[in-house]
Amino acid sequence: MSPSSWLRSLPHPITHQAGLAPVLRIIAVLLLVLAVMMSVPLVLLISEHDPDLRAFASSVLITLAVSGLLLVITRNSNMHLRPRQMFILTVLAWLVFSAFASLPLIMGSPRLSVADAVFEAVSGVTSTGATVMVDLDNLSDGIKLWRGLLQWVGGVGIIVMAIAILPFLKVGGMRLFNTESSGWQDKIVPRAGGAAKSIGLVYLTQTTLAIVTYWLLGMTPFDAVVHAMTSVSTGGFANYDASFGEYANNKALLWACVVFMVSGALPFVLYLRMVTQRSFTIWRDQQVRGFFVLVLIVIALMLTERMYAGSASFFDNLTVVTFNVVSVITTTGYATSDYNDWGPFAVCLFFYLLFIGGCSGSTTGGMKIFRFQVGVIMLVNQLRHLVHPAGVFAQRYNGRPLGDDIIRSVVAFSSLFFFMVVALSVSLSALGLDMQTALSASVTMLGNVGPGLGSMIGPAGNYHSMPETAKWLLSFAMLLGRLEILTVLVLLTPAFWRS
Amino acid sequence: MSPSSWLRSLPHPITHQAGLAPVLRIIAVLLLVLAVMMSVPLVLLISEHDPDLRAFASSVLITLAVSGLLLVITRNSNMHLRPRQMFILTVLAWLVFSAFASLPLIMGSPRLSVADAVFEAVSGVTSTGATVMVDLDNLSDGIKLWRGLLQWVGGVGIIVMAIAILPFLKVGGMRLFNTESSGWQDKIVPRAGGAAKSIGLVYLTQTTLAIVTYWLLGMTPFDAVVHAMTSVSTGGFANYDASFGEYANNKALLWACVVFMVSGALPFVLYLRMVTQRSFTIWRDQQVRGFFVLVLIVIALMLTERMYAGSASFFDNLTVVTFNVVSVITTTGYATSDYNDWGPFAVCLFFYLLFIGGCSGSTTGGMKIFRFQVGVIMLVNQLRHLVHPAGVFAQRYNGRPLGDDIIRSVVAFSSLFFFMVVALSVSLSALGLDMQTALSASVTMLGNVGPGLGSMIGPAGNYHSMPETAKWLLSFAMLLGRLEILTVLVLLTPAFWRS
Repeated sequence: MSPSSWLRSLPHPITHQAGLAPVLRIIAVLLLVLAVMMSVPLVLLISEHDPDLRAFASSVLITLAVSGLLLVITRNSNMHLRPRQMFILTVLAWLVFSAFASLPLIMGSPRLSVADAVFEAVSGVTSTGATVMVDLDNLSDGIKLWRGLLQWVGGVGIIVMAIAILPFLKVGGMRLFNTESSGWQDKIVPRAGGAAKSIGLVYLTQTTLAIVTYWLLGMTPFDAVVHAMTSVSTGGFANYDASFGEYANNKALLWACVVFMVSGALPFVLYLRMVTQRSFTIWRDQQVRGFFVLVLIVIALMLTERMYAGSASFFDNLTVVTFNVVSVITTTGYATSDYNDWGPFAVCLFFYLLFIGGCSGSTTGGMKIFRFQVGVIMLVNQLRHLVHPAGVFAQRYNGRPLGDDIIRSVVAFSSLFFFMVVALSVSLSALGLDMQTALSASVTMLGNVGPGLGSMIGPAGNYHSMPETAKWLLSFAMLLGRLEILTVLVLLTPAFWRS
Repeated sequence: MSPSSWLRSLPHPITHQAGLAPVLRIIAVLLLVLAVMMSVPLVLLISEHDPDLRAFASSVLITLAVSGLLLVITRNSNMHLRPRQMFILTVLAWLVFSAFASLPLIMGSPRLSVADAVFEAVSGVTSTGATVMVDLDNLSDGIKLWRGLLQWVGGVGIIVMAIAILPFLKVGGMRLFNTESSGWQDKIVPRAGGAAKSIGLVYLTQTTLAIVTYWLLGMTPFDAVVHAMTSVSTGGFANYDASFGEYANNKALLWACVVFMVSGALPFVLYLRMVTQRSFTIWRDQQVRGFFVLVLIVIALMLTERMYAGSASFFDNLTVVTFNVVSVITTTGYATSDYNDWGPFAVCLFFYLLFIGGCSGSTTGGMKIFRFQVGVIMLVNQLRHLVHPAGVFAQRYNGRPLGDDIIRSVVAFSSLFFFMVVALSVSLSALGLDMQTALSASVTMLGNVGPGLGSMIGPAGNYHSMPETAKWLLSFAMLLGRLEILTVLVLLTPAFWRS
């Protein structure tokens, strides 16, 4: 008996059920990737003789073991994925990735509780950037690098999902950005793979540029690497308790960071087109223009108020306002200053900024610019219809017709976002959090931004003192937001599991 | 020359322009009604020898003079109204009515500033119930009765508008409740008149029942009349600074008030059907059932929390929770207790209750139950569509198909409601109001509820100390909310005035 036929004779307990085998096989490959990622801080820690190396070594072993086990169980499985399996795969991938990513945080020197470690890992992988860790300055380099790596790799995952997966699952109106109309059944895995490769290249270039810039402008090489990774992924983990405020006096560095956060908030498809087709249409894109117009308006409003309120110079105000506005609207979440103290106007604006997010197909969270634009187009149309009840008005976005199915998806996503904010904030308030904290926490977590408002979770605060139940709720909220809500909810419908 | 031919020979400056003549003629009739209304407190004040009678006498004269002038100018005008004129009429009617209704408040003993008087009048006519007046207990009976009358007559206006006008203007998805499919051009005025008559009869019966009940349960006859008028209109003006808290120890009265607030929150069309067709289908109506289920769930949640938190008896808690929840969800706005002190869970729930409102076609404000139900139906459909992309699913509401046009109207209204909340709260925060006050004021005014959250405008507070600019903004917000937003916005589009 040859080894392969012996293997084939073993029972296949999972391959026969619900077609989960191909899903688990891809999860196994993801865990392999995670184990390789874990080896990076491991090597660094070995060179530094840091005791955290044991935590990473154990994590690598556990992850490899599970990965290997899954690969054996799912051998010979048919790798054709249908939409139902893609839904399961997408949700499961983020769950499993976050769970294993939390291992070094539990076993390493931070000795986080499971709730804390999962919160921190989810916040990393979803590129949210909210932290439960205090005394960041004294963490081992391995842990710091791990936090940066999670956000950086999470960022690629987000873009690949937005470009290659969600549009085909018809989630949240992202089919608006799907340039191909052909069926997808047999193409999704190679397409996701192909997209990942080109995206990876652009992303790597972007990150390298950020590293070099940050280093030239005064960061240590290590800080430059970690902050570059958490800037371009619009994640927002920093190596310091003061967040990017550590560099508050280095104005050039703050402006460089603004550029990289913005670059992470633009649609990656346009970068790809820039590289492959030498087409510099990025400035003609309706979503990109909407993003810049909005950012400029908010900066102008807040700057005007700041100039009246404070004594700082125009350039100082411009820098600090631009940095913090861009940080929140791109859902990065770095802070240089506690804008809770900027008065009610700024607090109110920052609250609404938490909802918005960057462009679709970027690493940002939030509701995304295009959904607001589609909303405005729809409203204008509705007003026209009231004036001319018999008129027929073409609705277009970025030159493409805006079909009813896209509008319905956008509306479904937006209403779900609000429903989830309501459900979450009511739950958090039942745990004793005041209204401002509960409300802003719900929005900032669903929008994968990071900081909220108020003294506890504001830009100067930390999620450390949240009740443990709240941390679990918010970890769920971060994943829910990252997966555009519908992707998760569809798994909770009985109809999904029936047929 | 006969007098009539002499009249006809006068120049007609307005009849020739934009077809405004029939609009102004109906406004003139409304002002006549207002003058008759003003005579009621006038007679009361004469019998009481109160100096406020002069304010009411002057107000009657001014109103009659303007009405007469308009009637002369618009004589012989063609009374056919097209949709464009109906939009103008609807908005103008509420504006003019509020403006003239504020006269007695400016000239009478309260000596309100114009901003305060307009706020109070708008709050009355739109049946919002927010007040800028302090020391209510010492007002003259004439002013107290005037506040009650405004809400009561405003209530009829709201129902007539919701049943007979807005569905034909296709505003906010209210065509869902339109039982006739025929054209409306020549029928809208007689139909509105006919609807007003039957509605008036039901409303009068309801009010009489409330007066008798309140009186039997211990109110003075005068208080019974005013509070009955502000209960069935879900308005919420009270004769006391303590609001309905004046009767906090009279549990039977509180429960009676709950019944009348709920009766004002149900669709009046169903009452009409009950009377004319002896059809008691009110309990089978999807909107009515949704309303009751929601009210019961919220009461159960808040009661549970109250039982844990406080030492009061079950029945005391049940009474105070039911009263205040029903008061806010029906957008009445009476208070018996400062629920700001009930802890974050209650505050958060009360915040969201401000959005909801009662049933469409009632005197309540808010977004209305049916819009949330349509939202849920749409979401469920969207989830089904994700599971079975090729499936076609019938959407029905109350047994009637839910067309795309209705859904679009509902979505347009809901997004506008949120956009307006954002614009208003940002403006209020720029005037220095803190986030909780700015946010809750925006929602409670657009939703025509009354009290907001926080110490300033919460149930124990008063709009008196708001900045004057804020009062103007909020007066506009109350009218905007009452007119279902789109009715006003359509007047602000250039296309409306072009053709």
